[in-house]
Amino acid sequence: MSITAPKGFRASGVAAGLKSTGAKDMALVVNDGPEHASATVFTANRCKANPILWSQEVVKDGIVRAVVLNSGGANCYTGAEGFQTTHAVAERTAAGLGIGAIDVVVCSTGLIGLKNDRDDLLAGVDGCAAALAEDGGQAAAEAIMTTDSVSKQVVVEGSGWSIGGMAKGAGMLAPQLATMLVVLTTDAKVTPAEADRALRAATRVSFDRLDSDGCMSTNDTVTLLASGASGITPSEADFTEALTRACTDLAMQLLADAEGADHEIAITVLNAASEDEAVEVGRSVARSNLFKAAVFGKDPNWGRVLASIGTTSAAFDPADLDVAMNGVWVCRASEPAESPELVDLSPREVSVTIDLKAGQERATVWTNDLTHAYVHENSAYSS
Amino acid sequence: MSITAPKGFRASGVAAGLKSTGAKDMALVVNDGPEHASATVFTANRCKANPILWSQEVVKDGIVRAVVLNSGGANCYTGAEGFQTTHAVAERTAAGLGIGAIDVVVCSTGLIGLKNDRDDLLAGVDGCAAALAEDGGQAAAEAIMTTDSVSKQVVVEGSGWSIGGMAKGAGMLAPQLATMLVVLTTDAKVTPAEADRALRAATRVSFDRLDSDGCMSTNDTVTLLASGASGITPSEADFTEALTRACTDLAMQLLADAEGADHEIAITVLNAASEDEAVEVGRSVARSNLFKAAVFGKDPNWGRVLASIGTTSAAFDPADLDVAMNGVWVCRASEPAESPELVDLSPREVSVTIDLKAGQERATVWTNDLTHAYVHENSAYSS
Repeated sequence: MSITAPKGFRASGVAAGLKSTGAKDMALVVNDGPEHASATVFTANRCKANPILWSQEVVKDGIVRAVVLNSGGANCYTGAEGFQTTHAVAERTAAGLGIGAIDVVVCSTGLIGLKNDRDDLLAGVDGCAAALAEDGGQAAAEAIMTTDSVSKQVVVEGSGWSIGGMAKGAGMLAPQLATMLVVLTTDAKVTPAEADRALRAATRVSFDRLDSDGCMSTNDTVTLLASGASGITPSEADFTEALTRACTDLAMQLLADAEGADHEIAITVLNAASEDEAVEVGRSVARSNLFKAAVFGKDPNWGRVLASIGTTSAAFDPADLDVAMNGVWVCRASEPAESPELVDLSPREVSVTIDLKAGQERATVWTNDLTHAYVHENSAYSS
Repeated sequence: MSITAPKGFRASGVAAGLKSTGAKDMALVVNDGPEHASATVFTANRCKANPILWSQEVVKDGIVRAVVLNSGGANCYTGAEGFQTTHAVAERTAAGLGIGAIDVVVCSTGLIGLKNDRDDLLAGVDGCAAALAEDGGQAAAEAIMTTDSVSKQVVVEGSGWSIGGMAKGAGMLAPQLATMLVVLTTDAKVTPAEADRALRAATRVSFDRLDSDGCMSTNDTVTLLASGASGITPSEADFTEALTRACTDLAMQLLADAEGADHEIAITVLNAASEDEAVEVGRSVARSNLFKAAVFGKDPNWGRVLASIGTTSAAFDPADLDVAMNGVWVCRASEPAESPELVDLSPREVSVTIDLKAGQERATVWTNDLTHAYVHENSAYSS
């Protein structure tokens, strides 16, 4: 059910012919109200796709009534014609729903630089509108998949209200990035300002700390729609906590389905001088191809962890770093400690713990290993 | 001949038992004068190996009389015992040559966190001292190889003087990084200050713009030794130009032998607001695993180039970027232009040209593709 679990939402997913496989490739999510509060965060990439350029304007007033999404083409770097295509999709969606185009967020994912056929997209919009259903969440979640092997969905229950979510993303997955799209729905009564604060708090510790391959997408969009249909106003703390759980659950689903990955790696940095520095150190390790290839080879190569830490500007003493892998402290005070042979890297889940001994803050960054399958999949993506 | 081509130098390379293969693993380069000017640049990694900690002190007075190098272990993160080992190697080298240990640079390369047997190293020093020869450059260049498949050497001739060089490095190759070691020799008469200016100018546009795998080593060292034995004092401009040619030649040899690489990729950024911004943009593309995997797959995926540019802080208009691959302008004004089908990525050498249209500065950054062989080699390095 996912995004259609909360009251006040309908959704659909159809095949519009964008994907050569004939699989579903367009989705529509509609907030039937009574309220239409929303919040959205976009990629930090300065090269933004046309749907982002459009949707940035749509979300400014905190009101979104519908999100229309397509896979099979990112509509990024397709020029003025591509922007007009996005606009036309929003207009067609609005016309079918009897609302204004300026309340329609558009999301696209797929190859950058590919111009989709506008007529295919518009026919897909019509198909989506006709297929809208109160149990359409599953179809919508399937329609936004690209290299994903499974659909990603979540439901978090509050007291009389709930949050639903769907996500896609398997590559170019270092959000702030081909393409992470997330739609979250709730029937809680929240204002646009509350929704914005809650969404930024939730994404900061979930999607923003996922760094599968270090590559930032041009199309990332996370949109929250609130219908108020439950009639219940949760405390902001309760709502933020539930939203954070939903985002973290979806982020872990993205991590587990990352292109070609054999391992999910959680890098936890302890005792940093600041949370930002903990994230900086975690991300530096998450972006080390040598470390990631070592994990693929089940090699607890902690030297590559230290070499990555050394490239950051975080506070620490290079002569006093501790590193554990799967709970084995292979390095203490920057010297070899417990035997790396005690580290079993067979399971998919790997933990790396780094003690900076520089403060009291901490953070976890998630990444994947670097595998033959990753190289294969990404050397053949567009050909 | 390489490092022993200039007058005033002897060198050697021997097998000291550090490598399990029995291959040569220790080298010694001696400047017999009459002068002993020198300049050295080290890795910018804050986690520095013991030989770096030692050699940073050695080079401060601009005088270096010998460089002793070992492969088969980086002596990094091996604690106080490791530092003492480096010191003992310098002392033994000095004793054998009748000089002071404080004039002996020590370089090590190999696995981080591995403690080499000190007796093996000291016996190797003795072996190197006994084997010193005026034609020992080849043996020395072979002894510093790790995953290198070939030795890297260069000779650049001046007017009555010359520059020789040797280098090793195939992985953790984003110098400022497991491990690039370079020794350069000259018989020109240059002061330590001139040598320092020339070396920094030369490395800035050569080794510093090589970014094979984005991973910065803990052991990188580039040392220049000047004997003055030619009796000739070249102009600083002439010497800097020749030294830059020597460094660029060695950098291209490193690039061509990078672990598992199928392609050498030159990313040239044109019309940047500053040279630093040109380097930042080039390096962002050089570090995109998605772009590098696409080149391996012979896929001219320019969208991945734009997505990388967008992660930088350089000045440019996201709607007005041009990108060429092997001379085919596949993207003009941030839109599809010439057909990617015209781009032939079969040859090893690939050029990417990016026009930022934001100024008049330019820079080239060199990298390699991301291949199955890279993943294979680096998933099995220490096991």
